[in-house]
Amino acid sequence: MRVFTQNDPFFEPALDETLFSLSNGYLGVRASRSESPEEIAIRGTYINGFYDRVPMIHAEKAFGFPDKTDKLVRIIDTQTIRVLLDGEAVELTPESVENYRHELRMEEGISLRAFDYMKGEKRAHIRYERMASLKEPGLFVYSLDVDYEGEIEAESLVQAEVYNFSDSDDPRVGQHEERLLMTKRLEVIQEKIFYEGYTASTKASLQACITHHSDAPLTFQVEEEVARARARGRGTLHLEKRLHLSDSYHYEDPAGELLRLQDVSSNSSYAELKAEQAQILQNFWQESAVTIEGDVEEQRALHYLQYQLFQNAPRGPWGNIAAKGLSGEGYEGHYFWDSEIYLLPVFEWLRPELATPMLAYRYQILEEARKRSLVMGQKRGACYAWRTISGIECSGYFPAGSAQYHLSADIAHAMMAHYEMHDDVDMLADFGAEVIFETARLWLEVGHFDEEGFHIFNVTGPDEYTAIVDDNYYTNLLARKNLRSARTVYDVLQRRNPQALQRVTEKIGLTEDELGEFQKAAAQMVLLYDDRLGIHAQDSSFLHKPAWDLEANRHLQPLLLNVHPLSIYRHQVLKQADTILAYTMEEAEEDIMRRGFDYYEARTTHDSSLSKCVYGIMASRLGDLDKAYEYFRDSLYMDLHNTHGNTKDGLHMANVAGSVLSILTGFAGLRSQGGRLALRPRRPKELQGYRFPFRYRGRRLQLEVGEGYRLELLSGSPIEVLIEGEEYLLTDVLEGGTL
Amino acid sequence: MRVFTQNDPFFEPALDETLFSLSNGYLGVRASRSESPEEIAIRGTYINGFYDRVPMIHAEKAFGFPDKTDKLVRIIDTQTIRVLLDGEAVELTPESVENYRHELRMEEGISLRAFDYMKGEKRAHIRYERMASLKEPGLFVYSLDVDYEGEIEAESLVQAEVYNFSDSDDPRVGQHEERLLMTKRLEVIQEKIFYEGYTASTKASLQACITHHSDAPLTFQVEEEVARARARGRGTLHLEKRLHLSDSYHYEDPAGELLRLQDVSSNSSYAELKAEQAQILQNFWQESAVTIEGDVEEQRALHYLQYQLFQNAPRGPWGNIAAKGLSGEGYEGHYFWDSEIYLLPVFEWLRPELATPMLAYRYQILEEARKRSLVMGQKRGACYAWRTISGIECSGYFPAGSAQYHLSADIAHAMMAHYEMHDDVDMLADFGAEVIFETARLWLEVGHFDEEGFHIFNVTGPDEYTAIVDDNYYTNLLARKNLRSARTVYDVLQRRNPQALQRVTEKIGLTEDELGEFQKAAAQMVLLYDDRLGIHAQDSSFLHKPAWDLEANRHLQPLLLNVHPLSIYRHQVLKQADTILAYTMEEAEEDIMRRGFDYYEARTTHDSSLSKCVYGIMASRLGDLDKAYEYFRDSLYMDLHNTHGNTKDGLHMANVAGSVLSILTGFAGLRSQGGRLALRPRRPKELQGYRFPFRYRGRRLQLEVGEGYRLELLSGSPIEVLIEGEEYLLTDVLEGGTL
Repeated sequence: MRVFTQNDPFFEPALDETLFSLSNGYLGVRASRSESPEEIAIRGTYINGFYDRVPMIHAEKAFGFPDKTDKLVRIIDTQTIRVLLDGEAVELTPESVENYRHELRMEEGISLRAFDYMKGEKRAHIRYERMASLKEPGLFVYSLDVDYEGEIEAESLVQAEVYNFSDSDDPRVGQHEERLLMTKRLEVIQEKIFYEGYTASTKASLQACITHHSDAPLTFQVEEEVARARARGRGTLHLEKRLHLSDSYHYEDPAGELLRLQDVSSNSSYAELKAEQAQILQNFWQESAVTIEGDVEEQRALHYLQYQLFQNAPRGPWGNIAAKGLSGEGYEGHYFWDSEIYLLPVFEWLRPELATPMLAYRYQILEEARKRSLVMGQKRGACYAWRTISGIECSGYFPAGSAQYHLSADIAHAMMAHYEMHDDVDMLADFGAEVIFETARLWLEVGHFDEEGFHIFNVTGPDEYTAIVDDNYYTNLLARKNLRSARTVYDVLQRRNPQALQRVTEKIGLTEDELGEFQKAAAQMVLLYDDRLGIHAQDSSFLHKPAWDLEANRHLQPLLLNVHPLSIYRHQVLKQADTILAYTMEEAEEDIMRRGFDYYEARTTHDSSLSKCVYGIMASRLGDLDKAYEYFRDSLYMDLHNTHGNTKDGLHMANVAGSVLSILTGFAGLRSQGGRLALRPRRPKELQGYRFPFRYRGRRLQLEVGEGYRLELLSGSPIEVLIEGEEYLLTDVLEGGTL
Repeated sequence: MRVFTQNDPFFEPALDETLFSLSNGYLGVRASRSESPEEIAIRGTYINGFYDRVPMIHAEKAFGFPDKTDKLVRIIDTQTIRVLLDGEAVELTPESVENYRHELRMEEGISLRAFDYMKGEKRAHIRYERMASLKEPGLFVYSLDVDYEGEIEAESLVQAEVYNFSDSDDPRVGQHEERLLMTKRLEVIQEKIFYEGYTASTKASLQACITHHSDAPLTFQVEEEVARARARGRGTLHLEKRLHLSDSYHYEDPAGELLRLQDVSSNSSYAELKAEQAQILQNFWQESAVTIEGDVEEQRALHYLQYQLFQNAPRGPWGNIAAKGLSGEGYEGHYFWDSEIYLLPVFEWLRPELATPMLAYRYQILEEARKRSLVMGQKRGACYAWRTISGIECSGYFPAGSAQYHLSADIAHAMMAHYEMHDDVDMLADFGAEVIFETARLWLEVGHFDEEGFHIFNVTGPDEYTAIVDDNYYTNLLARKNLRSARTVYDVLQRRNPQALQRVTEKIGLTEDELGEFQKAAAQMVLLYDDRLGIHAQDSSFLHKPAWDLEANRHLQPLLLNVHPLSIYRHQVLKQADTILAYTMEEAEEDIMRRGFDYYEARTTHDSSLSKCVYGIMASRLGDLDKAYEYFRDSLYMDLHNTHGNTKDGLHMANVAGSVLSILTGFAGLRSQGGRLALRPRRPKELQGYRFPFRYRGRRLQLEVGEGYRLELLSGSPIEVLIEGEEYLLTDVLEGGTL
């Protein structure tokens, strides 16, 4: 049984809320308790991509600084179902609670919170269940069962007055408390609570219907912005509460969608809904479970993270996966490069059908990226906003925001990878080609030729502890891929879907001349190499900077909260993997990678949660399995042990994915090299083994690694595979030892 | 008669307000009209350095970003003295006004605004005068005379409810409307209006007493935050209004100071005050007038600018000279490097006694600079705030703010120059040495040694169109001067005031070892030279950037308002002189300077008002008098012709000074080279000649340039002079031809 458990009733509430949050990619509900005092909790419910726009205030404004920002809206709070026993509210105290357990039941897709409650001589048993329907994304179900020899009352709330979370001292969450959702209607009609609200600035509509079912009689009451349903019984009480949601960003006819959803819901019992949910999860685990053998805790942690990935993935055009998924308000619900570089690879290997909506999201905002490119000073091309929901730039600090031009190449990379891994020409024809062409154009606009080659100046690479630099290795490498992909995609479509090619080239006015320029820039792309150190330079100035004493300055970490940016930028110190990340995407010579790894690792703070998993993956690649395993552990427990101290604001989704990748592209060394499958199976000595099924170009495969490796073709035609650089034809099973 | 005139009654009011603003270095009053509709004016009265602190809000905050900013407070508005004729208010219309003149009488130190006013068949004559007393800085006098055959009423207002000016779209003025001054008391006692207020946040006290004198009977009225004095007469009316001011920032006992001031004021008639004022100005023009012969307009403009410098200079420890002096609210009353690099040189040559208070101001805020240094990541030393009033950093955009470390070297440079030009060892002993030592320490903290020498990375030089660069030529040069000055000052004090040296070295713990490090860093300071172009590189990356097409992009100027910073930074384009400014302070080889001038000039937008005068001065130095004269003209008329379009927000004081410097250090080529006077007199063909008296090391000298030059020692002992690089001993007069 895959169950994640927390048995301490007094565990830090805001952290608990994040860890047990439920989602289905459309809606997300944090695990706020009905008994908790509100002040220590972040009682959030969200809809993916349901944002409002709020003013962005700059201390000193310059041209092109955004004056508005998207912000994920905290929507109406339906979480509270308070229990009263003999008229007194249940309040958790060390004396009153026994047998407390909080469980995320990952095979059923529900959470459970149950405990015994002592009231004088009497003992009550209280059991809450919750479910975010994976079948009907607008549906969230609460269920409550109470056993108590006495009078039981359940008071269920719908609170329409909600405020987003803010902390004026932490740049990683919103800095101003704001009410983003205004109530238009809150009323009870035939025992149903109907809510209609709208975002304060964008006037997007949110519609909800909350139903209650109980074995006891129900009464309803609406007072200003709070609706209450009460059920009173004796001995036992069962109350079921269903939240049905719909909104105008995602549905053309939100009222119609809400009606449809209510209709479906009203025809299904909770037991039926649970059965459907379990079916979906059974399929998920069967087709996609990554299993490690050795430490049971680690296996549970890994499955927990896999579950989070699965439940946070949008199953339709609802947006992308935010930095925190739908588990919290950190980074204001914005989508970053995390999606393309960390999250998508997991889906591509394990469940490519979940990748497509995320790729399609980037196409939805292509027009905004074109506009942004003009604002940033380019004459054409697409320049994606560093952080956004609706497509507009929402980064308030451009040196570590808009300056990260690499995002546009990251998006092109993700689309190209999807095409190569699944031979998905339709995706290219539908939108991928257009995005890849438009992002390729960006590099011609931003870069320039000189006698040394093609340079890209004044951008920020993945490492945010150096900003606005010249010829960042990662950026230049990814830009080169982007430029080359444009040529490849052009040729592929010319061969396989010339109509689509004609449509897109006509639409955007792409010429053969431009393709020639793409190729020229790619061929001459500057990738800086330092002869003295025998490594690639992260950028043109990095290796010339003075050292930063990591040990002596450990107390200043994370540096972003304790050191002025200028002082950080002035030193050889990294927030996160940069050149090393590039190596996981396109290899350099073995000894250069090895020296680079040692050099950059010694200068990396890992202040970014996106760092350790990458170093771990590269350590696997270089054969340092001890180190790889250590990074894997750190990555695995980052949220579960709250090692960054801010998991209350939401899960670090990139790292969540990175933990899974640590096995796929780390230990197993999976790669897709221009449409060819490659692997280098390795096993850290701390693990007895691991196994996972995966997909590649229409095949289903399974890899098991223990003392040796066993690669099995589960379905599909035979396929060439590179194992440790050697070519094999996989027709059924390939087996061998591991290095 | 030195008079600056504007005879159009419908001239743009906000511009008029700036151009005719009056000041005495302590208070400043814009020339707001009593008849103007308020909405098109900026009715400002200010006290130098009288600030409040307001929150600084960042879109995304990082460590060390200021959370508060100083803001010059608009104080109570005493400007309005409305005239009513036969009960009807005077309102200027094209039909009703004749013989309008607005004059700044620069020999009397007053402004005059007079006009005839037609009312039906009757004609009134109305005459306003104003004076900011140069003798009693807290005193401002208004006088009104009306002739009219009928009933005349004058209504004089004191408005206590005032708001600072704001424009949310222009980063160069405040972005939020705020009330910074709160009223504590406004009342009339024995025909005197007493006001007491305090700044909203810092609770600094402002005290005022407004008196009225008239040949007609006066009545008073206070209604909420407005006090009114009314005088009614027939035929003629005279009304005099005196504003007496005092504040708790500048006076320990502001109430006592106010009493003293009233006492002095009440014992002087307006005629007596005017006579004193005229005396001060007579002395000023006699001792300090820079005169050009040729174009009368130019001469008037030049005197106008000289007058502005004189009247804006603080005559005591009241602060510094803000970017706009006391003529407007642009840049929120902050002090910048403008003081040290543009304004002080004028005072040093012409009126060094006005330089000392400005230098002393920097010592007053040294402690804040020490604190700022720690925040910025240094372990010691003084790092002056880029823009400030009280000493705290008030820059909201650090790449073009805090990153301009050169300010600290600029301050050291100004102190060293003052010492060298006037042999002012007392200033060094009193405070100069401490500032020079502490700023020298900054460079050891910020820079680092490598095999190439001593580098200063990640700072911004004077040119704000390249930011966060390595080895900016200007910065490194000035830092080298700073480091060397520390050694010099140490030696000078050891010789001439060892007690003072001991006091300061003990206070700050300065060691011989540190001095050795200063010398080592200075000796190894990297000054980048590009062999290919034969010029100094502005910084390590500038010359590698792609070109910016100035001509094609002329419509985008000023770039800061129309192009994203990243796009600006990415190109070879300058906002203002940078390396060329360095050359005016320390010369390089002639041909390097010449090539550098051509190279950088062709890439400079002059979007900064601090740019053209510098290019002009260097053009003079290089013998291109046509160009020098053209720059001089542009500089001369920048505010008078409002060529930057924002003179309404105040005069561009650095450029005002730059215009005068264009003659002193430009045409005449005055330099102080390590305590030795040097000049290279030149004359643009457009001028018949120019002359000015000046001071140097206790001497008074006069230079006249016409067909030839004539340098006369007016007083003091003979002195060695370098003329065109040749040594002469000046005992009485030296004459020669000009090149």
